[in-house]
Amino acid sequence: MLPEKPLAWGRARSCIRELAEYGWKRKEELGAENVFDFSLGNPSIPAPDSVNQTIAELLQGDSVALHGYTTAAGLMSLRQRIAGDLNERFDVDVRPERIYVTCGAAAGLAVSLRATLLPGDEVVALAPFFPEYRVFVEASGGNLVTVQPRMGDFQLDVEAFAAALTEKTRAVIINSPNNPSGVVLNSESLLGLTGALRRHEEEVGHPVYLICDEPYRELVYDGAEVPCVFSYYDDTILCYSFSKSMSIPGERIGYLAVGSHMTDGDAVYASIMGAARSLGYVNPPSLFQRVVERCLGQTVDVSKYQENRDLLLSGLREAGYECVEPQGAFYLFVKSPEEDAKSFSERAKKYELLLVPSDDFGTPGYVRIAYCVSRDMILRSMPAFRALMAEYRS
Amino acid sequence: MLPEKPLAWGRARSCIRELAEYGWKRKEELGAENVFDFSLGNPSIPAPDSVNQTIAELLQGDSVALHGYTTAAGLMSLRQRIAGDLNERFDVDVRPERIYVTCGAAAGLAVSLRATLLPGDEVVALAPFFPEYRVFVEASGGNLVTVQPRMGDFQLDVEAFAAALTEKTRAVIINSPNNPSGVVLNSESLLGLTGALRRHEEEVGHPVYLICDEPYRELVYDGAEVPCVFSYYDDTILCYSFSKSMSIPGERIGYLAVGSHMTDGDAVYASIMGAARSLGYVNPPSLFQRVVERCLGQTVDVSKYQENRDLLLSGLREAGYECVEPQGAFYLFVKSPEEDAKSFSERAKKYELLLVPSDDFGTPGYVRIAYCVSRDMILRSMPAFRALMAEYRS
Repeated sequence: MLPEKPLAWGRARSCIRELAEYGWKRKEELGAENVFDFSLGNPSIPAPDSVNQTIAELLQGDSVALHGYTTAAGLMSLRQRIAGDLNERFDVDVRPERIYVTCGAAAGLAVSLRATLLPGDEVVALAPFFPEYRVFVEASGGNLVTVQPRMGDFQLDVEAFAAALTEKTRAVIINSPNNPSGVVLNSESLLGLTGALRRHEEEVGHPVYLICDEPYRELVYDGAEVPCVFSYYDDTILCYSFSKSMSIPGERIGYLAVGSHMTDGDAVYASIMGAARSLGYVNPPSLFQRVVERCLGQTVDVSKYQENRDLLLSGLREAGYECVEPQGAFYLFVKSPEEDAKSFSERAKKYELLLVPSDDFGTPGYVRIAYCVSRDMILRSMPAFRALMAEYRS
Repeated sequence: MLPEKPLAWGRARSCIRELAEYGWKRKEELGAENVFDFSLGNPSIPAPDSVNQTIAELLQGDSVALHGYTTAAGLMSLRQRIAGDLNERFDVDVRPERIYVTCGAAAGLAVSLRATLLPGDEVVALAPFFPEYRVFVEASGGNLVTVQPRMGDFQLDVEAFAAALTEKTRAVIINSPNNPSGVVLNSESLLGLTGALRRHEEEVGHPVYLICDEPYRELVYDGAEVPCVFSYYDDTILCYSFSKSMSIPGERIGYLAVGSHMTDGDAVYASIMGAARSLGYVNPPSLFQRVVERCLGQTVDVSKYQENRDLLLSGLREAGYECVEPQGAFYLFVKSPEEDAKSFSERAKKYELLLVPSDDFGTPGYVRIAYCVSRDMILRSMPAFRALMAEYRS
């Protein structure tokens, strides 16, 4: 007698979470130094010093104001800073009145979908994708449709994408830099994608929203650039989080921005306000609104993640693994040496290597390696990776 | 082409918010000391000193852990402390495994409803009630049914309540101490309510959940006691918030507790986990989980609110107003001297008195006075209240 979907979502084990829990158990049994846990995307680098310094300073002020309600959309001063920062960096014209500060990017996505989907609408996600997209889409009454990438560089397969658009397509979710592949969608992919979308909008006669999930925007390597989608497409909703850029994922603070030139943008923004209200979001956490306002533009020391990526990528390639070339985030997407990635992940456990099979990410046959870990663990894991590959070569 | 309800909820002006914004404008025009703003339920007493002290101490620890993800349900150590505290104070047997830490009581309510309602289900709310209940219920596919209180003391009208229960009734929401009336539901009311519910459960053959919204539990006066509903009824979900008890409403931290003896309680808890996940709640804010764990049991100086209540209640009664006797929260519910409370609220503006008309609370003909304000403002407002009443007596 309970609603079917929430019950199923509550009972379904996430394969990431399941592997992480297995890892905690093994660490207790064997000692943490003997388990190579690459399961979780939990930032391993501390927040910039300014984060805790700012909190300490804020504690000196008026406590009632500091911990009090703010407007639902977040402090106007914060929204002005966010808009100013985006406009300066990307030469766009985001307006503070179109920014809605959220409890992280997950809330931004859930609210954006709830605000735009009609029952039975389709949402296209580019695989591989973060598994929660399916839950957010279905919770808003929609159906998820997936499109595989161009194998090799994991950029957009524009024909496959165009073929996935139907009369029911209401939104497209992209995630760049990507979890789980680390790939940054390049300008060519974005041009192909938004071109197809514009043609499709004309054909069906209603807006198709491009929802950009960008929690990893600041985590890029070798000077890679993440194009700003507002420059490519008007009907864009940007979902951002400070979780990874400032290493404060537990504090739940991010924002969404509705494009200044979106079709009926004021109505979409109003619908976002109504959706957020109806899901129980009163305001984003007040102390951390002030923290990110004062610390905006500061990030963790990304060079640490880059060192990890370089070490892991060269080590694994040397050991014979085929890896997708990652330009950002803190994930490496590695081709499974056997067809069934779950079976590969099981075999890896023999060597205490915890690698997430890619099935739930929508592109089977790979494992995700989260390298937000210590450099030392990566170094110590290399013999295990080599021994694992040797099994497939004998 | 946007979903109807979110758009309507986003566009609808809350009459509370509208009055507050009028107040901000008037304060700019006339000076803050000349406007008597009783519109908002925003705590006016600072958090206990230990809150900011605890934050400062926590900043000395491991930053990655402090600001990192926690389990979705919240830290087990916090859930153990909450359960222990409830069990000790109320002689109940709440289990930590049935506690889900939430982003405030609003999230707890939205998630509880989403986890339990089937399309078309009815949810009974005892009027007067917090207007957001309607939004949360409709967002979960349900319909709100309201029951008027026993006029005079605003306790339960048990006959009216029993008459409101139908085959479609899936849940009942109660709120004690009550926003907007300040009334605490006494033991007799709770016995009548839960007796009727148990009989109804047997009749219809499925659980009817009692959802208790208790953000004002700690704000009671003259030694009033708020009975713990777990002692009365098994199919209870308690929604609590630290917003008012610790004056940290902007930080969004509270919890829900599913009764240990609830019918299919494990499934209900699983459905709550799934509902929270699907609405984009990843985990409750991590820093404040640790703060409330360490500060549990500490509250703001409630005597300040009691002084305000006493001052306002005696002053208004002396001036000829009829007030519902409040035992808790920080609201006074005052009968409008004319039938239309909106018209009364408009007339009050002439005297710079901002009083919220009760229509949206489901019991028309009253105004809500939020006395979480300075004692000084209450004193200065008295001549205005007297002049306003004089209009009705001339």
